[in-house]
This record gives sequence, structure tokens and C-alpha cells, in this order.
Amino acid sequence: MTVKTIHVSQNALSANREIAEQNRAKLDAAGVVALNLMASPGAGKTSLIERTIERLDGRVRIGMINSDTSRAAIDAERAERAGAVAVHLDTVGRCHLDAGMVRDAMACLPLRDIDLLFIENIGNLVCPASWRLGAHWNVLIASTPEGDDKPYKYPKMYNGVDALVINKTDLLPYVSFDLDNFTRGVEGLNHGLTTFPLSCRSGEGLDQWFDWMASIADRKAALAR
Amino acid sequence: MTVKTIHVSQNALSANREIAEQNRAKLDAAGVVALNLMASPGAGKTSLIERTIERLDGRVRIGMINSDTSRAAIDAERAERAGAVAVHLDTVGRCHLDAGMVRDAMACLPLRDIDLLFIENIGNLVCPASWRLGAHWNVLIASTPEGDDKPYKYPKMYNGVDALVINKTDLLPYVSFDLDNFTRGVEGLNHGLTTFPLSCRSGEGLDQWFDWMASIADRKAALAR
Repeated sequence: MTVKTIHVSQNALSANREIAEQNRAKLDAAGVVALNLMASPGAGKTSLIERTIERLDGRVRIGMINSDTSRAAIDAERAERAGAVAVHLDTVGRCHLDAGMVRDAMACLPLRDIDLLFIENIGNLVCPASWRLGAHWNVLIASTPEGDDKPYKYPKMYNGVDALVINKTDLLPYVSFDLDNFTRGVEGLNHGLTTFPLSCRSGEGLDQWFDWMASIADRKAALAR
Repeated sequence: MTVKTIHVSQNALSANREIAEQNRAKLDAAGVVALNLMASPGAGKTSLIERTIERLDGRVRIGMINSDTSRAAIDAERAERAGAVAVHLDTVGRCHLDAGMVRDAMACLPLRDIDLLFIENIGNLVCPASWRLGAHWNVLIASTPEGDDKPYKYPKMYNGVDALVINKTDLLPYVSFDLDNFTRGVEGLNHGLTTFPLSCRSGEGLDQWFDWMASIADRKAALAR
């Protein structure tokens, strides 16, 4: 008799992938385009969502799934105040979202009334990189005060995303951030990655981001028609 | 017959605790005081270690165990250039240090020639909070551009540390950081926590930190005599 070996982590990841595919199918059926927003703590995920809601209000209907490791629904409340439909996911200390959590949160949202869904992941540059959620776009927000060496230190995250925001460009005069070194690191991992340098605080660079958000929402709506 | 249930995560944590105790015993026997430095990516762990090495050079012998999720030994090289004995731990994508990794790294260091050992954890505010390493002090570095809401979002981390550094105070005029809200959050989780507001860049507040570092190294040396 051969002993059967169960590879727990692989099984967990492949089960996750199946649920992620189901999430994607539900989003597509409802005509929703979804973004999985990942970043370090405090890089500006919620600020970028807030600015986007304020700017696209009345043109694109926005939903938000917010996650944090605690009950504090601070970010979901910020998004609701800005005008989105939001739910808060308390991961009870867990370090990343998985597709099952997102499935449960999606069930609480009126998907037919949403064009663009932001899924705000746990602030963490490591664990979220391994777990697909079913989102159409995996987006990473880097932040200038974090320093320019992050692509070299968190290659899996930088390698696995479809777009990159460089937030807090207004702080460039006050922090050590060598854009050339940063860009070289990104290019080595994810050649030609779509990148948006911007500042949620000063507003610089936000127009390009808003245009992209509006265009991916429009394309989705056209497909769903 | 009763089916035996194995609680994998509890077993892993209790096995970790045993190794952490062995690490502590080895450190004590060698007269080394060890700090487990935790923070978000880019909050300034390596910068603080660098400044401390430069300032205490010739007075306190410093060692460093650096960890990152990749082979890039950038931070260990920075510490060596500043004058410390350093080893780099590549966690191959893992999101936190555990006591076994630290045991293996300690075996590569000349502990008898070290007074103060910095263990630089993976940049992550979630996972490292659950894993004790055997260090005498668990120290968290917050960073002003991260925002003042982090104690509310990462309560386990803020609750479990013995000292707190608030780095990048030089950026306070340029970022949204309500010190009162931050302090209320910290106080609610960890009353009376020893706190060092400072800036590794401008140097403000560093003297208090250096004094503390020298005093804990001296106390340890006196005990080991």
C-alpha cells in the first residue's frame, strides 16, 4: 500500500484558484470590473479609492470590499462617506485575503449596481501575492517614503501584478527614493508594467489614473451589454 | 477509540516557543541582548540599525541578523558597511521569521564578540507578531507617512511589543499624522509603552534611543560578568 501524501498548501492554493474563477465568472455576469489593490500598510490604498470615488461619482458606480485584520471598519466608512457601496471584511488577524473571503463579501454587495469594484487587500507586501481573488486587475501601490529597494526585496509581489501606482510623489523632495533604481528593479521583474506615478495628497498624476479607471469600466460595460 | 486531533498551528507555535527559549538561553549565556525589530516595509528598520552602529561604534559591539523574502542581502550589506557583524536570512518568500531560522542564523555569528544583536524581521505588520524569536525586546517601528490609524488596524502587533519607535518625524509637516489619535490607539492596546519619536534622516530624537541601546547593553554585560 502506498501512503498518500496531501500537499496542504498546494491544495489550499488550488482550491482558492477554483473559487477565484467562480468569483470572476460572477463579476463578469454582473458586468463588474474588479481590482485587487495591494500595498504596504499606509501606502495609500484607501486614499486612492476615495479620490477615485469622488472624481468618477455619477459616471462610474463604485463598490469596495475593504479588509483589515481587526474589526475597525475605518476604511470602509471612508469609502462610504465618499459615495461608494462598501463592506468591511475583518480577517481576525489573518494576513491576506483569499477568494473565499471575497466570495462571501461579494454576496453582501449589489453587484448589478456596481461598475467598478475595489478589493482592498490587507496591508502586506508578502502574503497577498500568492492568493488570487478573481479580480481582473492586480494592482500594487508603492509609496515613495518606503524607499526604492522594495522591488528587490518583495520580488513575488512586483512580479505578479498587472499595474503599479507610485503614490506620494509629493514627498520626493523629502525622502530618499532613487526612481532609476526603483524602475530598474521593477523592469527586471515585470517588463513594461503599466505605471502611474501620482500623489493622492497633491493631486498630481491622478488624471491618468482616473482615465484608466473610467476606460476599464467603460470597456466592461460594453462587453456586458 | 477517540480520534486524536492535532492542532497544527498551535503545535507549530508551541514548538517555536521552545526553540525561542533555547535561543534566549544561548543569548544569555553569551551575554548578548537581542532586539526583534518589526515594522512595515520601508519604515526604517535598517536605517535605525545603521545609525545605532555608527553612533555606538567602539562602545557596544553590534551584530545583525537581517531577513528578507529574497536573496537580496541589501540590508545586511548596509549594516556591515556601518561596522556590524551581519548575516542575511533569505526566507524564500516566507512572511515572518521564526525561532528556528534565528537559531540557524545565530549559529553563524560570533556571539561572544557581540553585545547587542538586532534581528531585523520581514517588513510586515501582521505575521511576525505571532512568532517569538527569543529576543529580549520586541520593538516596533512605526513611520509617520503610514498614517495614524495603524494601531487600530494592526492591534496584535501594537499589543505585543515592548517598545515603540515613531520614525520619520521630519516628515510630519508634509503628511497626515494625528499624533493624538495614534497615541490613543497605542495606549488602548499597550498602556505606558516606552516610545521613541525620532528621525533617522534629520537625527532628531536619536539620542534618547542611543542612550537606551547603550543602557540595555551595559546592563546585560553587568549580568553576564
